[in-house]
Amino acid sequence: MSAFSRFTALAQTLPATVPFVGPEAIERSRGLAMRARIGANESGFGPAPSVLEAIRAEAGTTWMYSDPENFELREALALHHGISRDNIAVGGGIDGLLGEIVRLTIEPGAPVVTSLGGYPTFNYHVNGFGGRLVTVPYAGDRENLDGLLEAVRQENAPLVYFANPDNPMGSWWDADSVVSFARALPETTLLILDEAYGETAPAGTVPPIDALIGQPNVLRMRTFSKAYGLAGARIGYAIGTLGNAQAFDKIRNHFGMARISVQAALAALKDQAYLADVIARIAASRERIRGIARSNGLSPLASATNFVTIDCGRDGVHARAVVDGLMEHGVFIRMPGIAPLNRCIRISVGPEEDMALLEAALPDVLKRVANSE
Amino acid sequence: MSAFSRFTALAQTLPATVPFVGPEAIERSRGLAMRARIGANESGFGPAPSVLEAIRAEAGTTWMYSDPENFELREALALHHGISRDNIAVGGGIDGLLGEIVRLTIEPGAPVVTSLGGYPTFNYHVNGFGGRLVTVPYAGDRENLDGLLEAVRQENAPLVYFANPDNPMGSWWDADSVVSFARALPETTLLILDEAYGETAPAGTVPPIDALIGQPNVLRMRTFSKAYGLAGARIGYAIGTLGNAQAFDKIRNHFGMARISVQAALAALKDQAYLADVIARIAASRERIRGIARSNGLSPLASATNFVTIDCGRDGVHARAVVDGLMEHGVFIRMPGIAPLNRCIRISVGPEEDMALLEAALPDVLKRVANSE
Repeated sequence: MSAFSRFTALAQTLPATVPFVGPEAIERSRGLAMRARIGANESGFGPAPSVLEAIRAEAGTTWMYSDPENFELREALALHHGISRDNIAVGGGIDGLLGEIVRLTIEPGAPVVTSLGGYPTFNYHVNGFGGRLVTVPYAGDRENLDGLLEAVRQENAPLVYFANPDNPMGSWWDADSVVSFARALPETTLLILDEAYGETAPAGTVPPIDALIGQPNVLRMRTFSKAYGLAGARIGYAIGTLGNAQAFDKIRNHFGMARISVQAALAALKDQAYLADVIARIAASRERIRGIARSNGLSPLASATNFVTIDCGRDGVHARAVVDGLMEHGVFIRMPGIAPLNRCIRISVGPEEDMALLEAALPDVLKRVANSE
Repeated sequence: MSAFSRFTALAQTLPATVPFVGPEAIERSRGLAMRARIGANESGFGPAPSVLEAIRAEAGTTWMYSDPENFELREALALHHGISRDNIAVGGGIDGLLGEIVRLTIEPGAPVVTSLGGYPTFNYHVNGFGGRLVTVPYAGDRENLDGLLEAVRQENAPLVYFANPDNPMGSWWDADSVVSFARALPETTLLILDEAYGETAPAGTVPPIDALIGQPNVLRMRTFSKAYGLAGARIGYAIGTLGNAQAFDKIRNHFGMARISVQAALAALKDQAYLADVIARIAASRERIRGIARSNGLSPLASATNFVTIDCGRDGVHARAVVDGLMEHGVFIRMPGIAPLNRCIRISVGPEEDMALLEAALPDVLKRVANSE
């Protein structure tokens, strides 16, 4: 391997791994071409036309570093949420912010509570800093709030992760339950409340900002990757107390944000009319996916996100065969990684041409999978 | 401060700080408007027109995550350098890669050797992981290779940083000296050879790739931020052995790269004609800056970079007054932070309108500074 002989003891134990294999890697390794990209919970509806215009207009400014304080974006987000820009930390997507939070809170061996089958990238960061994952099974395909709270207390964990709405199941808790959970946590446990899919959830799912803004053991995560359609820009942000937002300044890569991405996020935030419109299209696309699932005898779960998780009624081997079969038809989807969640497949919303490809391929795939079992 | 009460012991000791204050922050805090942005070693000449075209053409793809393996970019870089893509790790600028290397190599308390007055962002990352900085003074305004080697041996340091050409002094060593230094290091010391300014250096400065590619204790750093004119894109890469390039995969944010940035870098790499042209313009602009300095009685140092460091002949207080005075004229420049380097100011190359502003402002600034001393 010819690696340097003196990496840290922790680094030497870590595998070289990627939490999610990208569709490009699948195309390369299997010689396939993906025609419908509905597996990574991106938004095939794209960002607003006004955002594309901003990107093109800003191309000529990309010789300059982006403002390391992210002042303008934090100011716009503060106005949007009715808080102070000092309550906001900007980072390279929620993925990047998760790594920073784990670094700020976890010493090697420290327990970290999350759901069994929850977000793999969070687990990747916990492992990367030597934390010890303590996992709580889902209950009824929802993250188990009572179970998470009990695990936190039992382990005296400094950190707990909870996504609302949830990925990969698409399920959600109402805002009151979320606030009660946050308030019940010991003040020595930091809650990461991942609200990546908050914009697409039913009213009453996402707690009001002021319900948790004063609580020093809560950080809420938002992103431009999902409803705003800017996954490729890598812009996420954390909302919390002034002290918590500032904590990122101790360790973050201050000159780490791409200038055009920041300008794209600013333009996206301004175009709330497009956001409202695309949320309606996302909701309609969810219904389209549910209809396709049902007419193939599968059971779609309720979803508050930009994807639909579909119970294929058997085990992980079966669901994997469905995922692989669809990919051979050029339809890229994913599935949960761990039982019992992995009886399901997960399909992201997208424009009608993607849905039509899915609709055309699925019956054939299910028939072939059934025949080979 | 209302911060979470249980951040790690290390995190609690770290200051919330930025290694470089951005020109935007200076504008905000002092109510100034910068008309010439020649302080951050960006390239006011910008990227190639073909790159701007690529950015505009790729705007519509930004709803997709960028390939987490950075396959296409690594492949293109491999071809460019005549190596394998497995020798290359891509990251969020050299700044981002430096943080990852420190994380891979430094346990709290471990000694890290660098030059006194060298790159502050490297020091920031070392502090951020609890490393102990061991600094070696410059000798004759160059990094002191013998001194660095001696400090490495004395401290048994796992990590040493050396920039060639150097920032902030613009000085350089010939390739043979660099290779000798790298070969003399203990195999338990990893050399970060920062070649951010390699493209603008005289022939014979940058060692051939194959001179060091097989050495497991060397990582070479390159960037699209300087000669390629893409500072705002945040694309850097590390060149090293397969094992070292793969080590980044253990900890990096795999979905951290902005898609448009990656496409911009690909386009920039393709346009080597533009690169050759802009390197000539950078060289001419260095001469322009040297001329302005000389006609104001100041002593420009020789430079292998896209900036010129100018000895103002007195101390850091004097140089700071010159920097501040220029900023009041809307001319943003910077200066080294530590004596004796801080007798100098540092001016980045740029188009003629920037040079004209500098030329017009400098005599007035120097007169006012002299009068107030």
